[in-house]
Amino acid sequence: MKTVRLGIAGLGTVAQGVLKILGASQRKIAARSGVRIEVVRVASRTPKPEVDLLGAAFSVDLDTVLADDVDVVVELIGGEGVARSLIESALAAGKGVVTANKAVIANHGNQLFARDASIPLKFEASVAGAIPIVQAVQQGLVANENSQIVGIINGTCNYILTSMQEQGAAFNDALDQAQTLGYAEADPTFDVEGIDAGHKLAILAGLAFDCEFDFDALHIEGIRQITSLDIKYAQELGYRIKHVGIAKRQGDALEARVHPALIPQDALFANVNGVTNAVLVNSDAAGQTLFSGPGAGGSATASAVVADIVALGHFDATAAIAPRQPAKFLPINEVVCANYLRIPVLDEPGVFAKVAGALSTHDISIEAAIQKESQSLQPQSLQSQSLQPQRDAVSIVIVTGDCQQSTLQKALNEVRQLPQMAGEISRIRLENLD
Amino acid sequence: MKTVRLGIAGLGTVAQGVLKILGASQRKIAARSGVRIEVVRVASRTPKPEVDLLGAAFSVDLDTVLADDVDVVVELIGGEGVARSLIESALAAGKGVVTANKAVIANHGNQLFARDASIPLKFEASVAGAIPIVQAVQQGLVANENSQIVGIINGTCNYILTSMQEQGAAFNDALDQAQTLGYAEADPTFDVEGIDAGHKLAILAGLAFDCEFDFDALHIEGIRQITSLDIKYAQELGYRIKHVGIAKRQGDALEARVHPALIPQDALFANVNGVTNAVLVNSDAAGQTLFSGPGAGGSATASAVVADIVALGHFDATAAIAPRQPAKFLPINEVVCANYLRIPVLDEPGVFAKVAGALSTHDISIEAAIQKESQSLQPQSLQSQSLQPQRDAVSIVIVTGDCQQSTLQKALNEVRQLPQMAGEISRIRLENLD
Repeated sequence: MKTVRLGIAGLGTVAQGVLKILGASQRKIAARSGVRIEVVRVASRTPKPEVDLLGAAFSVDLDTVLADDVDVVVELIGGEGVARSLIESALAAGKGVVTANKAVIANHGNQLFARDASIPLKFEASVAGAIPIVQAVQQGLVANENSQIVGIINGTCNYILTSMQEQGAAFNDALDQAQTLGYAEADPTFDVEGIDAGHKLAILAGLAFDCEFDFDALHIEGIRQITSLDIKYAQELGYRIKHVGIAKRQGDALEARVHPALIPQDALFANVNGVTNAVLVNSDAAGQTLFSGPGAGGSATASAVVADIVALGHFDATAAIAPRQPAKFLPINEVVCANYLRIPVLDEPGVFAKVAGALSTHDISIEAAIQKESQSLQPQSLQSQSLQPQRDAVSIVIVTGDCQQSTLQKALNEVRQLPQMAGEISRIRLENLD
Repeated sequence: MKTVRLGIAGLGTVAQGVLKILGASQRKIAARSGVRIEVVRVASRTPKPEVDLLGAAFSVDLDTVLADDVDVVVELIGGEGVARSLIESALAAGKGVVTANKAVIANHGNQLFARDASIPLKFEASVAGAIPIVQAVQQGLVANENSQIVGIINGTCNYILTSMQEQGAAFNDALDQAQTLGYAEADPTFDVEGIDAGHKLAILAGLAFDCEFDFDALHIEGIRQITSLDIKYAQELGYRIKHVGIAKRQGDALEARVHPALIPQDALFANVNGVTNAVLVNSDAAGQTLFSGPGAGGSATASAVVADIVALGHFDATAAIAPRQPAKFLPINEVVCANYLRIPVLDEPGVFAKVAGALSTHDISIEAAIQKESQSLQPQSLQSQSLQPQRDAVSIVIVTGDCQQSTLQKALNEVRQLPQMAGEISRIRLENLD
């Protein structure tokens, strides 16, 4: 039996989840794994006398977890600065480190691993909560060359989009609901604008493509611009709108982007709803595998943290893993993909032909098109259309074939010049997950 | 860098898949994992000169893989007798063993692990092909007490049921189609009668509940009795019919059973279609996690085999894992679950009340009921109903509340005595996956 002596930094919901699991199941975990986990120190700037520390020494001084009697430091304080330096100090002192901190790994992971790619630093809980996706990609799929990894990796966005889908709710109402239920922060920026998903995608891309974690290379869009109308039309066309992080190999470069996307509704991935997360991996030998589960929450995240602690109990310090290499990322303008377009126009004869003509000029094919009464057309925007006689407004909804993003922008700029334009064009990328 | 010297026994599609992966990706795998895999010996009773053995020595004598220059034996010969003794010999010689052999693990795994629970014997490929489910349960979810594990773990059954669902095909036509496409064997017994799924469930139950692998304790049913009518009615009621292996904790006992089941159609699990496999785990900390992917095929299975080889490269020989304990299994008659019933009756006033009365007498509640024109009623069975005047036949379709299986059988025996009965009752269990 091995013993791992733990120093836990932080005493928030995840740390409390870890203590709860160890309090209840430490013996079973030891029987299963051969690793006995003993919590010797807990440090937090905010003491919480009500939490059972399982006999561990407590201090408000975070550095006490670096004491000699600690084998593995569990970093659960969050933030980037202090967390990063605590991790560095722990590694420098020869300790193993487990962290749930996606920002630290996404932004500073390369420096942390630079000294030695084989260091005992584990971060399963940083991506997709309870889902053992880091382990799956690094170990379960170790034999594979991956061509694509796509994740629904922000529960707040997925909850909001699911509400909009199922209840026809507007974005703001769905956000309010998510906040009421505790699925969104009071300031939801980090989630709904895609930063959180970006951190996770940076990590997933690094894992799936053996490259450095490069948050700054990502193209990131959030979901604020998605309307219930887009969701409805997408559904009519056979798609669901999901907020995804996607990384895929394109020749010797990588695409890595976070944005809403239309997903074929018969794909399993499109049916991952609510706060649930999912990651889909396309690999040469394993084919397409999907991993789904709770992406957040104290106990779900704690489940991943404890798995990492056990893994460090079996850590193979002699394994010489090659350091991650920088990847070349394709600029977003060079990305080729299909697109959903919703183009509000005044209902005049020939207007569809003009839109189609603009796309055709740029060799953009139309895979599907429907014309809809435009429920979203704002009275204001109609009024601002000068003194033209009142006409009906409609939405031309188009699914394009694959085209380069820069080409699409040129075509859409021409469409925007049409005198019949009656509002902003909505453009959402489409992913077939092939 | 560690080197694992491999002896591969067998040269079928999985072995060829392993050789192909190692030929193409050996260096990348070594860079990722720190484990260099070198194939030193290949043995097969059937030489295949066209296969690239990567420089390994070949023999038709299987025992040559037990030579001193082999660290890890990969058992891919299939069958139970020779495979089992080869595995035993390899372990006795101090070698690691990787096997894809579900029958050997399900039937003889306890004996293999009995000597020492910590032996280097890995079997990821024995369940659900490419999906790293063994690793997920043993490592990713190591912190959890699991309450239930449910798998769509036979691709043949899932392909047939999906065809019946999507095309309205009859069982035999769907089976023919599966055979034509290579998704079913010429003799499909092993798959469609649930034996293959049983082997996999025995392994999954052992992993999820820290107990011995006990194939003989399982209740096993196949899918031959499922009609397209049942699939259609289930759909009307909001369910899909899937062939599942399910193990769940009931007090201090376990239920473990393989059979078709109605699954709520909005569950992600219900939308796993075609030959794809999936495993759903309900855990106390991690919540509900789902793992899905190709369940068979040479390269998908080889992906799992290579992952196990790498894992043995990092094997922690000092971990003392507690041996599996026998579990107490609940007899199938004591299992409590909801049920779908299709009861063909002659359309007479009061017949539904009589059926409902029989259920009610046994305290079985009716959660949903529809009455359908009985398209499936056989002319023969009508004729055999004696010389009563010709009346319309209908199907009473009922979803019961939870009830004990033995109680349900008593109630159904009473229903069978009704003079209006016009055919066999179809009974399919219902699982809400909670």
